[in-house]
Amino acid sequence: MLLHSSTQLLTLQGPPQRGRDLGALGLIENGAVLIRDEKILAVGGTDELRASFPDEPALSADGCVILPGFVDPHTHLPWAGDRANEFELKMSGVPYLDILAKGGGILSTVKQTRAASLKSLISQTRARAQRAFLHGTTTAEAKTGYGLNLASELRLLQTLLALNDEGPLELAITFLGAHAIAPEFKNDPQGYVDEITNTMLPLLKDWWETHAPHLTLPFVDVFCETKAFSLDQSRQVLARAGSLGFPLKIHADEFDNLGGATLAVELGAASADHLVRTSDADIAALAKSDTVAVSLPCTPFGLAEKDYTPAQKIIAAGGLLALASDCNPGTTWNESMQFVIALACRAMKLTPAQAIAASTINAAHAIRRADTIGSIEVGKQADLLILSVPDYRHLGYRYGTNLVRQVVKRGKVYSVDANYYRMA
Amino acid sequence: MLLHSSTQLLTLQGPPQRGRDLGALGLIENGAVLIRDEKILAVGGTDELRASFPDEPALSADGCVILPGFVDPHTHLPWAGDRANEFELKMSGVPYLDILAKGGGILSTVKQTRAASLKSLISQTRARAQRAFLHGTTTAEAKTGYGLNLASELRLLQTLLALNDEGPLELAITFLGAHAIAPEFKNDPQGYVDEITNTMLPLLKDWWETHAPHLTLPFVDVFCETKAFSLDQSRQVLARAGSLGFPLKIHADEFDNLGGATLAVELGAASADHLVRTSDADIAALAKSDTVAVSLPCTPFGLAEKDYTPAQKIIAAGGLLALASDCNPGTTWNESMQFVIALACRAMKLTPAQAIAASTINAAHAIRRADTIGSIEVGKQADLLILSVPDYRHLGYRYGTNLVRQVVKRGKVYSVDANYYRMA
Repeated sequence: MLLHSSTQLLTLQGPPQRGRDLGALGLIENGAVLIRDEKILAVGGTDELRASFPDEPALSADGCVILPGFVDPHTHLPWAGDRANEFELKMSGVPYLDILAKGGGILSTVKQTRAASLKSLISQTRARAQRAFLHGTTTAEAKTGYGLNLASELRLLQTLLALNDEGPLELAITFLGAHAIAPEFKNDPQGYVDEITNTMLPLLKDWWETHAPHLTLPFVDVFCETKAFSLDQSRQVLARAGSLGFPLKIHADEFDNLGGATLAVELGAASADHLVRTSDADIAALAKSDTVAVSLPCTPFGLAEKDYTPAQKIIAAGGLLALASDCNPGTTWNESMQFVIALACRAMKLTPAQAIAASTINAAHAIRRADTIGSIEVGKQADLLILSVPDYRHLGYRYGTNLVRQVVKRGKVYSVDANYYRMA
Repeated sequence: MLLHSSTQLLTLQGPPQRGRDLGALGLIENGAVLIRDEKILAVGGTDELRASFPDEPALSADGCVILPGFVDPHTHLPWAGDRANEFELKMSGVPYLDILAKGGGILSTVKQTRAASLKSLISQTRARAQRAFLHGTTTAEAKTGYGLNLASELRLLQTLLALNDEGPLELAITFLGAHAIAPEFKNDPQGYVDEITNTMLPLLKDWWETHAPHLTLPFVDVFCETKAFSLDQSRQVLARAGSLGFPLKIHADEFDNLGGATLAVELGAASADHLVRTSDADIAALAKSDTVAVSLPCTPFGLAEKDYTPAQKIIAAGGLLALASDCNPGTTWNESMQFVIALACRAMKLTPAQAIAASTINAAHAIRRADTIGSIEVGKQADLLILSVPDYRHLGYRYGTNLVRQVVKRGKVYSVDANYYRMA
């Protein structure tokens, strides 16, 4: 198939975009992509590719923009239930500690998730995966973390493996047993850290090699915050995970700076995520490393807070910046990377081009898949979007609705019906 | 048709909700609506209505929430082109005056709009009207104001009349010739005010009575701001319009407080809109009146500004608060009232219930249609929504995507495909 647009084709070709290089779109004004099976075979000017492949069936996206599918490198996609009631309490001015006292907060989701069957978890998570996909996310990272015991965490992994097999959204799976102190260890947090380190991680490795031998090991992630895991506890979990061969991620500096970003660099983590209270020293450490700084602007937005990731400092320092949704039931239930882009432009003064690069090639690097996805380049997976807009800058400029016309995943074309209604 | 939900039916019954009464949802836990032709014939418990109308065909919305269609009481829906490039410049830190010097700003849209044919204006505006509809807006106010001369303003009115006839989105039309000083009057702003007052308004009245004899007169609106029309000029336009029988609206206090809100009260305007720099005295005047305070939170959001309408003060004073999108090409291109609600909760600390009331019954009052729309009550138009959520609080809590499953407009059911994709 020869997919072409006389409007704009954004290739995002080249390596992940560091510092002030962020925003190189590789724009071709009248460009085409040759797709065979699941792969990209050629990219170039439409006339040139038509001449080289005269018999190839064509799909016109004239009047539309073609770009790589979004990669969402940080979500908590699998959970059961919701916390809509808690949102109402927060907006009514009820203090967070009172909400916790009423049984709210993360442990409310843990309770609902533990009680849910695998079938129910798959069904509830599938709705979000499909919603992400129809808003243009072709690959999403997805974390466990609402189980907090071995059986429930494994059920969340089963959920994610099943949905990844089912598609079309492709998942990069992460084990986040260290999301919060499990309620059983309320009075012995270090006991839970030891349980993860000594029991869960080795078991997880065996389990994974049995249940998902076709996939590389999942990421292991830790929530390094005052209310969750200390820097030492985070190091204990991640160091052990690293020694077992798991690739690493960290939640750092969402509310407090405990040094998690620098720990991520030290341990060679793929990414350090949140980064709101990140110090200049941490930013300097990130900038010298290959660890991606993943900003989650929807989290402060969802919580109605004022401070965002110091993205301009990260760019100025030469860091690798990516964007993600952080979709979760407590702080931000939004599956759309289009909204993440629109918010990032406003809250962190990214240009649309920078926000697009941070949501494609750099986001792919944050899940260590920039070799296969994140740009429209020969040899990569044919994961791309056709947007119903005359210029890529409509991403960012417009928000609140879905601009996707079609999603191409591994070469298959999915039409998105988001812009249509029909008589029932 | 008997539309019923074992989940939640929000009727919003009763008069517009003043002050701390805002947020009365009229919730029925297992409720039903009897719809015949375009009207609501009965509302009540599902069992009771089934018993009373045993042969009525039923439409189940079990698991979903039924509520009145959103009314969006402030949009600038008809325009041509876009200003995506200007958005990128703004996010890059280019000062607004430099953007104006490059031909940006409102006059850029005026230029594109004047150059567009009626057919093109209808086509471009239809896309936005449909997008608003599929996100749950069943009636929207829509203003002219990118013509700024008689011929172009009338072409915008023709656009709106044609789309209102076509449906399904119903429009409340507003003449906003006083949106900006027309470029021809750059050096004689008072000359443009006189042109509107002495020439355009009387002609508009004749034109309307010829072209739209089946509709009541449109609203007349003025942009009362330092950069646009002074308080005296605003009074001149609105007083003349009022004396000709037009109902009135005003843009006040978006950037500067010139006294527009109090002028609106003085002249008995249906609404005063924006209200960011509104003083306590203005708020007190509004609270004693029947003029609705229409907050447009997407405008500061779109512009990445920090200050929003002092909604809590308006509520505390006993004012009538409504929400609107302000959808326009310069400051906020978002058609979704669901996003307006989500933003209003966070930026102005409304509860979901308050934001829903401000987007239905109170918004209907802001366009003086609360007698026929804005709530699910016997005798009103059957304009309502079925949301794919288990609790109304998902409005506000979730954002960035479309939660609508079906829209019912004048009794006709439209299925929204926003949550689906299909193999192309």
